[in-house]
Amino acid sequence: MINISLKDGSVIEVAKDSSILDIAKKISEGLARVAVAGEVNGKLVDLSYKLTEDARLNIITAKDDRAREIMRHTTSHVLANAIKRLYPSARLGAGPAIDGGFYYDFDLTTPIKIEDLPKIEAEMARIIKENAPIERKEVSRAEATRILNAGNETYKIEILAKIPRGEKISFYKMGEFMDLCVGPHLPSLDFIKAFKLTKITGAYFGNNAKNKMLTRIYGVCFDKKSELEEYLKEQEEIKQRDHNKIGRELGIFTTSDIVGQGLPLLMPNGAKLFQILSRFVEDECERRGYELTKTCSLAKKDLYEVSGHWDHYKDGMFVLGNELLDEEVFALRPMTCPFQFLIYKTEMHSYRDLPQKYYETSKLLRKESSGEMHGLTRVREFTLSDAHIIARPDQVKKIFKEVIDLITFCMKALKIDKNVWFRFSKWDPNNKEKYIDNPAGWESSQKQIREILIENEMEFVEADGEAAFYGPKIDIQTRNVHGKEDTIITMQLDFMLADNFDLTYIDENGKKVRPVIIHHSVIGSFERTIASLIEAYKGAFPLWLAPRQVVVMGITNAQDEYVEKITTELKKQGIRAISDLRNEKIGLKIREATLEKIPYQVIVGEKEHIANLITARTREGVDEGQMTLEQFALNVKTKCANFE
Amino acid sequence: MINISLKDGSVIEVAKDSSILDIAKKISEGLARVAVAGEVNGKLVDLSYKLTEDARLNIITAKDDRAREIMRHTTSHVLANAIKRLYPSARLGAGPAIDGGFYYDFDLTTPIKIEDLPKIEAEMARIIKENAPIERKEVSRAEATRILNAGNETYKIEILAKIPRGEKISFYKMGEFMDLCVGPHLPSLDFIKAFKLTKITGAYFGNNAKNKMLTRIYGVCFDKKSELEEYLKEQEEIKQRDHNKIGRELGIFTTSDIVGQGLPLLMPNGAKLFQILSRFVEDECERRGYELTKTCSLAKKDLYEVSGHWDHYKDGMFVLGNELLDEEVFALRPMTCPFQFLIYKTEMHSYRDLPQKYYETSKLLRKESSGEMHGLTRVREFTLSDAHIIARPDQVKKIFKEVIDLITFCMKALKIDKNVWFRFSKWDPNNKEKYIDNPAGWESSQKQIREILIENEMEFVEADGEAAFYGPKIDIQTRNVHGKEDTIITMQLDFMLADNFDLTYIDENGKKVRPVIIHHSVIGSFERTIASLIEAYKGAFPLWLAPRQVVVMGITNAQDEYVEKITTELKKQGIRAISDLRNEKIGLKIREATLEKIPYQVIVGEKEHIANLITARTREGVDEGQMTLEQFALNVKTKCANFE
Repeated sequence: MINISLKDGSVIEVAKDSSILDIAKKISEGLARVAVAGEVNGKLVDLSYKLTEDARLNIITAKDDRAREIMRHTTSHVLANAIKRLYPSARLGAGPAIDGGFYYDFDLTTPIKIEDLPKIEAEMARIIKENAPIERKEVSRAEATRILNAGNETYKIEILAKIPRGEKISFYKMGEFMDLCVGPHLPSLDFIKAFKLTKITGAYFGNNAKNKMLTRIYGVCFDKKSELEEYLKEQEEIKQRDHNKIGRELGIFTTSDIVGQGLPLLMPNGAKLFQILSRFVEDECERRGYELTKTCSLAKKDLYEVSGHWDHYKDGMFVLGNELLDEEVFALRPMTCPFQFLIYKTEMHSYRDLPQKYYETSKLLRKESSGEMHGLTRVREFTLSDAHIIARPDQVKKIFKEVIDLITFCMKALKIDKNVWFRFSKWDPNNKEKYIDNPAGWESSQKQIREILIENEMEFVEADGEAAFYGPKIDIQTRNVHGKEDTIITMQLDFMLADNFDLTYIDENGKKVRPVIIHHSVIGSFERTIASLIEAYKGAFPLWLAPRQVVVMGITNAQDEYVEKITTELKKQGIRAISDLRNEKIGLKIREATLEKIPYQVIVGEKEHIANLITARTREGVDEGQMTLEQFALNVKTKCANFE
Repeated sequence: MINISLKDGSVIEVAKDSSILDIAKKISEGLARVAVAGEVNGKLVDLSYKLTEDARLNIITAKDDRAREIMRHTTSHVLANAIKRLYPSARLGAGPAIDGGFYYDFDLTTPIKIEDLPKIEAEMARIIKENAPIERKEVSRAEATRILNAGNETYKIEILAKIPRGEKISFYKMGEFMDLCVGPHLPSLDFIKAFKLTKITGAYFGNNAKNKMLTRIYGVCFDKKSELEEYLKEQEEIKQRDHNKIGRELGIFTTSDIVGQGLPLLMPNGAKLFQILSRFVEDECERRGYELTKTCSLAKKDLYEVSGHWDHYKDGMFVLGNELLDEEVFALRPMTCPFQFLIYKTEMHSYRDLPQKYYETSKLLRKESSGEMHGLTRVREFTLSDAHIIARPDQVKKIFKEVIDLITFCMKALKIDKNVWFRFSKWDPNNKEKYIDNPAGWESSQKQIREILIENEMEFVEADGEAAFYGPKIDIQTRNVHGKEDTIITMQLDFMLADNFDLTYIDENGKKVRPVIIHHSVIGSFERTIASLIEAYKGAFPLWLAPRQVVVMGITNAQDEYVEKITTELKKQGIRAISDLRNEKIGLKIREATLEKIPYQVIVGEKEHIANLITARTREGVDEGQMTLEQFALNVKTKCANFE
């Protein structure tokens, strides 16, 4: 007999060589029914694993995240089994569980296309229905080699070679299918209640570009049918909102291999959206007393030595030239602050003149590794709505209130103020490389930020090690369609850079003293904002933001001249209108304008022409009826003025 | 006797050892009076130079440009002579004639300031009045060394050491002053009728930063007093127009050593001007059917290999990374064209859709050597109003007409359409490095450009070797305040890049064919345009362009509230107004607003407050009298709409 300690602290005595399933049964039949695997002394094993000595045991049930991982892994074997049945010449690569699903890599003589997936899924369903027992077999290295050679599994032989000497070598068998695998696996295929193959990509064997490119098939699986349904609904929603897909379809942006990763090009609709947004933010900032600057992207490293970027942020910058070889070494700016500080320094400032508020629609470049790049959200070059306020210490709280008001105003106008929350981002005292070493400064400014958050009744979460290198932040966080958390806007309190740049003002007593600096963006990066807007509106932008607001079309070409007259008049009134003069049926014109998500279709036939009227129709298909052009234009302009 | 051939082809016989002055006298007494030097077999020599054998002789008179150069050189000796009298411990560096004047470098124990120049000029005038004869002495190297050692002229000893063995070593003496010099010099100081010292700078001896920094004194000289007066008037005018001076004084831009040369920062007034200009151009382009793009600054070198920039323009680009060491090599874009071509390529185009016109307010970076940098005109980073039109060959002439119309419209609105001319810039068939080698393409496109120029009755000059590497250009040229010719706007016909980028459209017969590309800017670089505007208006911008249009001020602080109300109302109407609420006398406020060149002062006292009126006054001092705020605002808005 051996003693087995369970998770709840109890110890039970079982016969030596009892399997985990035996022990589960001994505890309760109910437990045995939902048991999937065991964790023996911290190591995951099959349910059939036999215990030979005293041990700590945790029985993993279907609800456990680790059970889901095991299910994903077993489903990948089911996929491989199906492929071997349908494509007998296929050779197997690796087939692990991954976050949210699984994949398996194959070397195929017949290429597999997305259209082939249903056939493969059907074969997988058959295999699950057959429900062959899953058996683990431990073998010698020689035996393993013999088995793999017999199957001509050349990739598995390479994998085998990488298993260290002395480690156990195991195969898992279900029915006619056998695979070199460390396990563990499900006790029965019965646990897989729902699955789906999702995509096919290429992947180098061993993730090494020198090896052959294999075919990787991805899938997902669930222990309830309803979970798959929910997953598919979510995917459909993501597809309808994914800015990286819709953004390209709607002519918002494109990318190019010869330009590079993370370097999107805004196409006419995207550039127009950028223009609308940047004018909106510039004008709103001007109304609130900010002064515009336009500074340069390139600067000598000398500037960043002063700012501290060279010490704390060098890896994030594109550097031109070599410090040892070149007379001039430049960097592309990752932030706007040093440039606006230099402008502040061109003249003396009195306490009466503060705060001095600068705003810039500022192009920034940050060196990110190309693998992490994505659409308009993970990019190397972007344009930040960037502001810096140079203030007296006594003004900090009032200014933060004003900044929060400005940001809230803009988010409301863009209707992206839902599903956001505040994060209080603090330094990490142990990370001397990332943060300027000034504990007293950090403590006092973090105290101020906390007070501002509390006084303004802002709910917030705290995050250590998320501050900028020069000060703590209030971040505005959101979650993108893929469920990932993103920072969209930040406000920072900076008690360091005024020292570095020797910024001063003359106080009431005629003394030169240091101002405090508040860094903040207004709507964050314009590229990211465009992505957020696409995802929020599925590309159907509110009227005031729509790159094209109205498409004017005639029932027949007899109205061409009238159509052009209307378009010209709308444009004269500042409305973004285009004519559709193609010799096509009105139904097709309406359908295409709807697909392009243009807010209004203005439709004119003979009747409207004679009466000097127009008929307006929304992209949602609402017929707004006949009206004069003046009525329509006024309606559009009123809506835009109200950010509708 | 020897035979001397003169410039007019005649030959005269003179005695051996006749001086040039002797020969001049022999020709005519008048010639002898204005003779300054001689050119013997192509080499410049003093008037006292004696001819020993047959030779070609050209007698240089005061009107000759070379005579002026000699006068400048001699005046530099007069300066050195004066310095030696006033600062006996001064040691001499080099002292050449330069374009438009001269300088002399000194190592001084007492520093010289700009206030000391009149005293030095007085001493120079005395020396010229003394009119000591100028004598050339040829000496041995040993004798030269002895003379220089005696005078402790350590820099001259270094200069002497650089004179190649075998070359003649000469000194020039006038009165007590003697200087190691190759000559030639004036025959008499009498020729210097007017001179002025202009500035003092530092300069490394031998132009080498490892050597000591000497004091360099610059000056100008003339053979007529009236020329100096004209020069001084011109200088005053340049000072009043020089964008590099006024631009800084008016808060348009600044530069910083730690940012680097050629990297100006636009301050609030400059950034506002940039915003006004860029919105004006973007809106005008939109009205004319251009579509906006916003593309990136950074791109892999792959893009420039396709475009041809890598082969023909690499030295002009900032490159990041090393081709041999780095996986990814990037360049900062010097031009926008490749990016807009990629956008064109995202979809198929029919002959019916052409021309496709793209516009971008485009940040560009070009690698210029730091020595050539100047204000807003010679810069490394700038923003171009950049357009590309992709068209059918049959559309080229019509499009060029439209482009010329757009450019002319903008130049007229900015009132910079005077003092400009067209230049037809052609390729240089012998420069294979700069130009794509396709003679037939060049010939045919140059023929088209010539026809366009002639058909549009545009007067033009021709320039070889000024084309872009991919096609011939029409340049719009101007002359800056310093008299230098500059290109402000270009239009190019490109028959190459459509091939490189594989740009196509589907023609009437359903065949894929190549479009033609027209590159053009609309108002050129915004930075340069701002410089031109400053120089054209001496900083007093027209109302519609003025960064600040109106300053509102009360006679006393009793009107503060009324002042604020007026400013708020003006701003609401889109007028760029500020309040001057300082507790200062109204006279001072008016004076300062005038100096800041703000177009309108709105002045309100108790009278105006009670009557709910305002008094308007222009920066030129014109009192426009009392009126309602509505009248004033309407007046301002009407003027702006008319580009006044």
